[in-house]
Amino acid sequence: MKTIYTIQMLQHSLNQFKKEDKKIGFVPTMGFLHEGHLALVEKAKQENDIVVMSIFVNPAQFGPGEDFDAYPRNTKRDMELSKNAGVDILFVPETVEMYPTNGGIRILPGPQATKLCGASRPEHFDGVLKVVLKLFNIVDPDRSYFGMKDAQQFAIIETFIRDFNLRTELVRVTTVREKDGLAKSSRNVNLSETERLQAPEIQKALQKGLELFRNQIPVNEIETEVIKHIVANTSGGIDYVSLLSYPSLQELNEETEEAILACAVKFENTRLIDNIIFSTKDE
Amino acid sequence: MKTIYTIQMLQHSLNQFKKEDKKIGFVPTMGFLHEGHLALVEKAKQENDIVVMSIFVNPAQFGPGEDFDAYPRNTKRDMELSKNAGVDILFVPETVEMYPTNGGIRILPGPQATKLCGASRPEHFDGVLKVVLKLFNIVDPDRSYFGMKDAQQFAIIETFIRDFNLRTELVRVTTVREKDGLAKSSRNVNLSETERLQAPEIQKALQKGLELFRNQIPVNEIETEVIKHIVANTSGGIDYVSLLSYPSLQELNEETEEAILACAVKFENTRLIDNIIFSTKDE
Repeated sequence: MKTIYTIQMLQHSLNQFKKEDKKIGFVPTMGFLHEGHLALVEKAKQENDIVVMSIFVNPAQFGPGEDFDAYPRNTKRDMELSKNAGVDILFVPETVEMYPTNGGIRILPGPQATKLCGASRPEHFDGVLKVVLKLFNIVDPDRSYFGMKDAQQFAIIETFIRDFNLRTELVRVTTVREKDGLAKSSRNVNLSETERLQAPEIQKALQKGLELFRNQIPVNEIETEVIKHIVANTSGGIDYVSLLSYPSLQELNEETEEAILACAVKFENTRLIDNIIFSTKDE
Repeated sequence: MKTIYTIQMLQHSLNQFKKEDKKIGFVPTMGFLHEGHLALVEKAKQENDIVVMSIFVNPAQFGPGEDFDAYPRNTKRDMELSKNAGVDILFVPETVEMYPTNGGIRILPGPQATKLCGASRPEHFDGVLKVVLKLFNIVDPDRSYFGMKDAQQFAIIETFIRDFNLRTELVRVTTVREKDGLAKSSRNVNLSETERLQAPEIQKALQKGLELFRNQIPVNEIETEVIKHIVANTSGGIDYVSLLSYPSLQELNEETEEAILACAVKFENTRLIDNIIFSTKDE
């Protein structure tokens, strides 16, 4: 594995592979890798000749008062994990390498960003689209791999790629979970021991919500039941629980084919998100 | 010359050239071609193996009440002119080909867009950045050619390319003028006979402004003199006359190396722009 710190060196390396017509799979991350990231790498390896992973804790997607400073980092461990997973090129730029200049151009997401995390993190997805466009332009990957724990992010990037003809294919990768059902997340390390024991109740609450949906319970009642379950079984505070169409993130209607039941829960030192995405037509 | 109407067919054609490592020069236009466009093609031919020209009157960059419908069009003549100029691929998409979907994502320019044309055309440059990003992604050109009559557009696109790592090199091409000094523009055809005779006074006024600048006259006096000259010698109304740094489009200060003196003048059925860009350090 080659570790590269500058855009110029990265493009120099990639140009060689592109001349040989190698297919490039790209796994953008914020580091502090876990099995969720490694599942992205595994899929990227299956489908491409070269796998590029980036590690960049993107300040543009953290709001004031959010956990940019507290976001867990361990580059040395990440290097080992990514190497063992078979990453070919690890790109680890400093902030000044990614944002040396700022002419004030912004990319604003559409209505998809007003729901779920977008409601409580108003400029979060602006920052996501900014870094994603930059990284896609820098790497020029054939395929890009994103995990479905960040389902809203996936939906917005999918819209960006579609509407602006971005030259990469977006690949959905299923959320990886701990044995007890908690979605793998770099932020899990910021849970207290007690919180960690309670956290699997988030996914249980969502599964309960899905069961209610299958029993044709109205959306607002489902959301209320999910909230009740989380409040009763964890010390976390509810940021949101929402059942919406996916990927449009609108209220469900008769044309909805795929839906998302998503939530964000605030614990003392961290905020966790999780979701389930399901066909509305299934039994 | 191959004329292509769909993104898919265009990319199919271009992929062949890219495999052969041909360099691609791109000339995006709104059609109704004149010598200004042909100068872009000429430069693109000198510097690349393949020249792609697009003709697309982009609705996204026209505001309500602007001249989208009145914008002159003549695709048949454009095809002849571009063929004779040596364009290899002419891309002529319909609006629905360029904008089949709209998830509401917008690209907002920064402070550069609040000045000059941006002040009177508030969403114009949003639309420009939208179509430019799409076209760059569709064509993936090595170099892209833009004329300096649209100097503000050039400055904003340059910032976009720099800050978002877009994969094309931007090439400045000098404004082409009629013998009497009027900047070539597709919109000149919408001038009345009398207006056409007066229109060269716009460039004369700007040259007078530059002379005043060389004589160390203050900026606001220069702007006033340029306005006076245009008002005295044409029937046009002043939209703006501004002397700013280039490409940052800020007020001049001691660090300014390059400046722009630009104006927009409204005639009965059309609005013309022109500018001169000059080093502030010259004698």
